[in-house]
Parts: sequence; structure tokens; C-alpha cells
Amino acid sequence: MDSMAKIDLNSDLGESFGAWKMGMDREVLAHVTSANVACGFHAGDPVVMVKTVKAAREAGVAVGAHPGYPDLVGFGRRNMACSPDEVYADCLVQIGSLLAVCRAAAVALQHVKPHGALYNQAAKSEPLAGAIACAVKDAGEGLILMGLANSLFEAAAGKAGVPFAAEAFADRSYQADGSLTPRSQPNAVIHDPEVAAARVVRMATEGVVETAEGKLIHFRPHSICLHGDNPEAVALAARIKRALLEAGVTVTPIQEVLSA
Amino acid sequence: MDSMAKIDLNSDLGESFGAWKMGMDREVLAHVTSANVACGFHAGDPVVMVKTVKAAREAGVAVGAHPGYPDLVGFGRRNMACSPDEVYADCLVQIGSLLAVCRAAAVALQHVKPHGALYNQAAKSEPLAGAIACAVKDAGEGLILMGLANSLFEAAAGKAGVPFAAEAFADRSYQADGSLTPRSQPNAVIHDPEVAAARVVRMATEGVVETAEGKLIHFRPHSICLHGDNPEAVALAARIKRALLEAGVTVTPIQEVLSA
Amino acid sequence: MDSMAKIDLNSDLGESFGAWKMGMDREVLAHVTSANVACGFHAGDPVVMVKTVKAAREAGVAVGAHPGYPDLVGFGRRNMACSPDEVYADCLVQIGSLLAVCRAAAVALQHVKPHGALYNQAAKSEPLAGAIACAVKDAGEGLILMGLANSLFEAAAGKAGVPFAAEAFADRSYQADGSLTPRSQPNAVIHDPEVAAARVVRMATEGVVETAEGKLIHFRPHSICLHGDNPEAVALAARIKRALLEAGVTVTPIQEVLSA
Amino acid sequence: MDSMAKIDLNSDLGESFGAWKMGMDREVLAHVTSANVACGFHAGDPVVMVKTVKAAREAGVAVGAHPGYPDLVGFGRRNMACSPDEVYADCLVQIGSLLAVCRAAAVALQHVKPHGALYNQAAKSEPLAGAIACAVKDAGEGLILMGLANSLFEAAAGKAGVPFAAEAFADRSYQADGSLTPRSQPNAVIHDPEVAAARVVRMATEGVVETAEGKLIHFRPHSICLHGDNPEAVALAARIKRALLEAGVTVTPIQEVLSA
Repeated sequence: MDSMAKIDLNSDLGESFGAWKMGMDREVLAHVTSANVACGFHAGDPVVMVKTVKAAREAGVAVGAHPGYPDLVGFGRRNMACSPDEVYADCLVQIGSLLAVCRAAAVALQHVKPHGALYNQAAKSEPLAGAIACAVKDAGEGLILMGLANSLFEAAAGKAGVPFAAEAFADRSYQADGSLTPRSQPNAVIHDPEVAAARVVRMATEGVVETAEGKLIHFRPHSICLHGDNPEAVALAARIKRALLEAGVTVTPIQEVLSA
Repeated sequence: MDSMAKIDLNSDLGESFGAWKMGMDREVLAHVTSANVACGFHAGDPVVMVKTVKAAREAGVAVGAHPGYPDLVGFGRRNMACSPDEVYADCLVQIGSLLAVCRAAAVALQHVKPHGALYNQAAKSEPLAGAIACAVKDAGEGLILMGLANSLFEAAAGKAGVPFAAEAFADRSYQADGSLTPRSQPNAVIHDPEVAAARVVRMATEGVVETAEGKLIHFRPHSICLHGDNPEAVALAARIKRALLEAGVTVTPIQEVLSA
Repeated sequence: MDSMAKIDLNSDLGESFGAWKMGMDREVLAHVTSANVACGFHAGDPVVMVKTVKAAREAGVAVGAHPGYPDLVGFGRRNMACSPDEVYADCLVQIGSLLAVCRAAAVALQHVKPHGALYNQAAKSEPLAGAIACAVKDAGEGLILMGLANSLFEAAAGKAGVPFAAEAFADRSYQADGSLTPRSQPNAVIHDPEVAAARVVRMATEGVVETAEGKLIHFRPHSICLHGDNPEAVALAARIKRALLEAGVTVTPIQEVLSA
Repeated sequence: MDSMAKIDLNSDLGESFGAWKMGMDREVLAHVTSANVACGFHAGDPVVMVKTVKAAREAGVAVGAHPGYPDLVGFGRRNMACSPDEVYADCLVQIGSLLAVCRAAAVALQHVKPHGALYNQAAKSEPLAGAIACAVKDAGEGLILMGLANSLFEAAAGKAGVPFAAEAFADRSYQADGSLTPRSQPNAVIHDPEVAAARVVRMATEGVVETAEGKLIHFRPHSICLHGDNPEAVALAARIKRALLEAGVTVTPIQEVLSA
């Protein structure tokens, strides 16, 4: 067991838009160490971005940009056939907009994590993952690209010369190759909070996870994605953080996990 | 006469959007020294922003952000009752988005000039001018706020601690107090290109302009706004630049005009 | 007292957008007789429109279009300087879109009530009220224009040849000329649900209201605007409906109130 | 040869948006018999819709709705993973909005032709073609669905009980099964206007087309898609119309072609 184990807990925040409220941002900020802040293309608006960055700062939570497809009505969840040039430019301006909001709040932007369909399509597409990694490289100094563990994001980040943070999901099962079990399969989702928490602890302390087929594989993510859109999700976030702390794991923003 | 006279020529650029083309950007870049680049709220899209900044760089033209109201169908030309907090946040993210595009192109963002109805409303509103000036201050280091000469922009910039560049219009007449003659009045617009060019030369060399009533007033703008949306506008831009050069005026980006 | 008293109760519905939910539509549908359905410009999206019209049909509630300014992030609540031609066209397409949704659901569109800033600006502007009335006339056969009692809407409807339904607010006080007490004044809002209910009953049965100054004026609206955005609002809607029924008032859609 | 041959010529119109102009609408209206009018999701805005329908009416050209994906910056040309429910609702409101504009102009809406990526994806997807056909059925009485010849549109129209108009492209080659030669193949596009015109005449008079491999197949479209985005396209439209008239073909709106 790793007595120096460190892990980041991240959550998507700032997903309100205009008069529409979404997410229990204040509650989930108490449990995570990195916040992925929507940048206006799929959610978030300028006023929400300003408020969210301030709230993260006050909670001592590191801030990341959460760029998505330009699809407000679809919440960035619908696959779109955008070209790499379009994805590059879309990410560049979204990251830049949050950078200015961070500068105004005297907060350093830590990372970039793509959202929804952009995240899912880029994880399997070298050109799209490359376009995102280049935007991260070009937008600012020292930004970390956060993406799905064991996907094309890692190589793209390496090629662009930006640090990569691998993220895992507490409530999802994994296959022998380290990829997510597709949601179409019956055992794709972990429903028991205790099981989910125990799995995350093992990832952090032992660097392993039990696959859907019951085999142990090497698996050491830098960050765990948590949700804050409902009370159960917030309770799970709290449960996981507590389990990690009880196991002696240091829960800390990804920049500190990566620099370990 | 001022043998060291300097002046900037600026124009709005990057106003295409998606499949829609607008403006003779390449042509007008040959005549101006500062480009105000649309940031996606009233015109421009991320791909257009990337292309426009590259084109300005190649033409040796300084780049500024041109934030507007979130009104694409109205091209940012319709007055809107946005709160100062909304205007601040809207400007902050628009400036930030262009800052990232500039960083990617290894271009330093020089200035910020509000667009259309935002420009017109803020010129007469202390809270709006103040919100814009604060966004300029907070978005980046050393950015210049460009706004209407003899309007509330100058005081707002001073209060926020950002440099101010006063802009004048070659094709508009002025009143005794240095304000624009309203378009509702018959002599508001200067139609003769030779007259317009001669007036600009006098502003740059003598620091005076003849008002609509025929009186000479002190008037020394840092920049002249030119247009590039049609061949006549481009021809006027060329005419004015030539007249300035023939009069021995140095035509140069506003940062150099201000540092004179 | 009028033993044949009839009144409509209306509420804004279908204000969700994409992934963002808003309003307690199902609950408030139990209490109102007319629903104003957002048409996508300030709220609502096509899928939400389809669902909302079906829900209204199932609840036996009459359907109206609720066009607003093209300002999603501002929820149509910010004044905008749109031209009458723009307002006409914006309303025409919004009404038309809901007409098709109604046709698909075998529901007859009953009325049109402008939303937010469009409602407030048009109530005081003859050109805007006229543009809206013309759009109502042109969009479909027999549509009723619902607007603020004692405002410019009534004359505009008359001029365009469309029926007009005057709406009043249960939680607002009125001045001697029948206009709303501005929110800037201390007694603009009625906070006590019992008082609000009693006032509505008097409007319906006696055709009078007590002004903020304590004077009785003639006031007989065709419809009362209720809200469904929070549990207190829904409770007030229920309270008012019950009070009306207990007073022997027939609560029924505006088309039946107007045909009385 | 068919001495009673009839064919429709259609073109996409009303693709301007706000301050951005697109297309030579006036010129192309002189040559076509049916106009597909953009409905605001990928192009067009309410004011443009009103103007375009009036212009079509004055030119004696039949009007159709041209619904597209909600992707303004991508001009509706990027594939999107919308659900059939979303496509149904999106089409329903777009058709409805143009129906109201037509009613205001005393014009009968003739047909619906999907745009861009929606057209291409639905041509190969039974659920999407079905969703569109149902929207056409539900939006109004007697509307014709126009779509790609020899695609899934025809069966979907049949199933929904709406008339179908098969459209062909003058400048594209066809394969043995009547489908378009993919653009990835070298002989996909017909570049010679004379060849294009002769091919259209043969489709109309003999009901055949020569495939890319040189084989004659049965091919009798109801309408030919022409373009109006540049002078060459307008010239081709004029050339094709002239060739048809010279060959004795009646060029007339699709409703008359279908009723033949």
C-alpha cells in the first residue's frame, strides 16, 4: 500500500444558464478539490462563470475550464461532426474566456476537461484529441489536460507537450483493457455507494481496480469524477471523500497529484 | 504644426460568422494600424477569430478585442438594458477569448473597443462605461480602452486605471463641446472624401476640428475609425492614410500614439 | 353582485429549456384555465413546447403563445430596442411555431400573450403594441391578444381587429387610473394571500378594485395572471381559484369569458 | 418521349441572417418554380423569412419550408446526433413558423424540404426520415415532403400519409441503383453546364439518366435542385430552365407536377 497516496476529486460546476439554475454547486464544492467550469457553449453564461470561479476560490477548490460543443439546447451531449479546426478554435476561446474570469478573481486556471459529447468523441478520435490538446497548449502556460484514463487523450497531451491527468469514474465499471464498460452492458454502472467508495480507495492506495469480469488490473487515475446535480450525488461525493481520508489518502487538486 | 504628429487608424474586422462573409478584411488591413476583432457575441465565431488575428499579424496590424451585446441577429446594434454586472462579465469573457486566440498566434492584445449599441450606450452611461473599463483592467495586463472622444469612457478608464485612447470619426461632424453631431441632424455626416481626409489631417497635425457651426475647437484624437464593409469605405481609408502620410503624420498603432 | 361572473386564470408555462427545468407546470395546470407557452426565443425549446401543449391538453387548459424577445440568457426580461418590423416578425414566427405544435396535438390555439420586457415595452408603445396585434391577426384565425389592463394593448387589438383580453395581477396594487403601481413604490406588491384572493374575487364579482390610495375604481379584468415557479406561488394560485369558486365565479378559459 | 412532361425547379432561399447577406435570391427567383425558405435554425431570421416569402409571392414562385439542425455557426451542415423526437419537434416548429409567415402573406405553403446535414442523415435513417415525415403531416394540411430521389424519404412519406416529391441534382452523377455518386469519387460532379442541362432534359422527357458507369437507368425526379449562391449557379439555373422549355417541358411547381 502507498502511504503517500494522493488523488483529486473533480466535478462539473457552473452549469446554470441565465434564469435556469442547475447543480448543487455550493454543496459539492465542500467535497471536491477541482472544479470544471462550463464556458458558455453548452452551459454557463458570463455572469455564472464569474460567480462560479469566485465560489470555487472561496471554497479553496482549483478551477478548470470545461469546454463543450456549441449546443446549448442539447447541453453539449449530442455528437456533432465538427472539424478539428473548429474544435481547436472552440476550445481556445472557451479556455480563454475562463482564463480572463480567473485572472479577474486572482485565481490560477489549473486544467481543462472537455465536456459531454466532445469528451466522448475526442477520447476515441486522434484528430479531435489532438485539436483539444493544442488548444490547451496554446491558450495558456502550464494548463493540464484532464481526460478519460486509457483513452487517446494521454497521447495527444504528450504530443502537444501538456501535462495529462487521467480521470476515472467512481460509479462505472472497467474492462480488462482499462476502458469503461459501455452503458449498454448490464454491469456498466456501480449502484452501491459503499462499493463505489471502496473501489476508489483501492485505485488510490493500491493502483488497481477489479474489472467487470472480476480480474484485477493496474489502474491509478489522478482524479475521480463526481457529480453534484442531485442530493444522492452529493452524498456519494461526501462518502467517497471520507473513505479516502479514512484510508490515509491525500485528497488534493490534480496539479499536486501530478507533481507528486 | 506638430512635426511629430502620430495617429492610429482603426477598423472593425472579423465580422464574418459561420458561412456568412462580411467585410473586406484583407483590403482594409492594408490601410489601418489597429484592428478591432469581433468576439462572437454580435459577430465573429471562433474559427473567424483565429483567422482574423493571423491575418492582422501578417499585415503588421495591432489587434484589439471588439466586445458587443449578445445579439447576433441584431449585430449588437440594438440597445439592450443589460446591468453593469452583465456588461462586465460579457466583456470579460469576450476579451479573454480573444486573448487566448492572440496568445496562440504569438500576438499581444493591444486594446479593447466596445461595439455598436454597447459603445453608444456606455459612452453616455457612467455605470456601463465603468463596467467595461473594469473588465479591461481585469482581463489582462496593459490593455488600452478605446472609446469615443469626449465621452464618459475617458473618466471610466482613468478610474479603473487603464490607458484610454480617444477615437474620432472621419466621416462625422462634431459639435462645440466635442461631441458627435447626432445623425438626426442634416450635417451629421461628411460625404466628401477630400473633406474627410483634410479634417483628419488637421486633427492629427493641429489638434483642431471645425465644428458643424464652423467654429474651430481643440480636438486631438488618438485614433480614427475607418470602415471596410464596401469598396468606397476601403477607398476612403486609403485616401485618409495617404493624406496623413503626405502631411508627415506617422500612422502607427495606438500603443505607440499613447506612448508618444 | 354579478351572479354570472366569469374569469380566466392564466400562467406562464413551458419555460424549461434543454436540460434546464423551470416551473411547477404540472401543479399549476391544476389551477389555471389558460396556459401561456414559451416559444423558444426567451425560453422553451421545440421538445418542451410539444410536451407542454400535451400536458395542457390533458389538464383541459386552453393554450396560448407566449412570444418574447430573442434573449435566452436574459430570459426575455431585458428591454431591447427592436423595431416594430422586428417585433412583428419575431411574434409571427413564434406564434406560428406554437400553432403547428397545437395542430399536432389537436389543440386549438386560443390566445397570444407577450412575455417580459416585450410585454412591458409594448404596453406603453403604440408601434410595438400595434406590431404584436398585427402578428396575432396575421398568424391565425380568431386568436385573442391578452395584455395588461388599461394599457395600449387594447387599442392596438381593436385597430388590428383582434379580440382583446385584459389581464390583471393578483399580487399587485393599482393606481387611480387603473395602471399598475410601479415596483419602485412601497405598496406595489400585495403580500398577503388572503388579501390577494379577496381582491380578485371583488374584481370578478363587483368589477372593482381598491387602489393603493384606498379608492374604489372600476376594474373588471378577463384574466388573472398567476405564477407557478415555486410552491408558494402554486399555493396562491390554488387559494385564488378556491376563493373564486366559493364566491360563485365561473373560472373558465378567456375565450368563454370574452364570449359571455 | 413524353409530350406532357412536367418538372419543378427548386432552390434554397432566404439564407441571409441579420446583417449578413447570402444568396442571389432575386436573380434565382426568376428561374425556379419552388423556393425552400430557411426557418431560422441554420439560417434565416424572422425578418428575412417575411421578406423572402413576399419576394417568392411576387415572383410567382411556390414556397416551401427548409428546416435544418439548430446549428447556426455550422449552417446546419454538420451531422448531429439528434433523437427522432428532437428532429420531429425541431421540424414541427420550423414548419409552423413559416406557415404563419405564409398566412400573413396570403401564400399557401407547398412543401417541406430538409436542409443540409438533416437532409443527408435522414435520407439514410428510417427513424429520422420518419420523424420529418410525421412533422410534415402534423404541421399542416396537404404539405408535400421533398427529398432525395431513391432514398428513405419516399417510404417515410408514404407511411406518414404525405405526398412525396423526389428531387435530383443537375450537377451530380448517379449510380446504378439511382443513388448519388459519393463526392469522394472523381466523377461525382457534373462540371459542364451543357451536359448538366441535357441530363435534366432527359430526366424530364425520357425519365432516364446515364449513370457514372455509362448505363441508362430509369430516373424521373419531380424537381431539380438549383443553386443561387453565385453568378455561375444562377447562370446554370437559367441554362437548365431554357433547355427544359426548348424541349417542350412544362416547368411548374411540384404540386402541379405531382398532380399530373
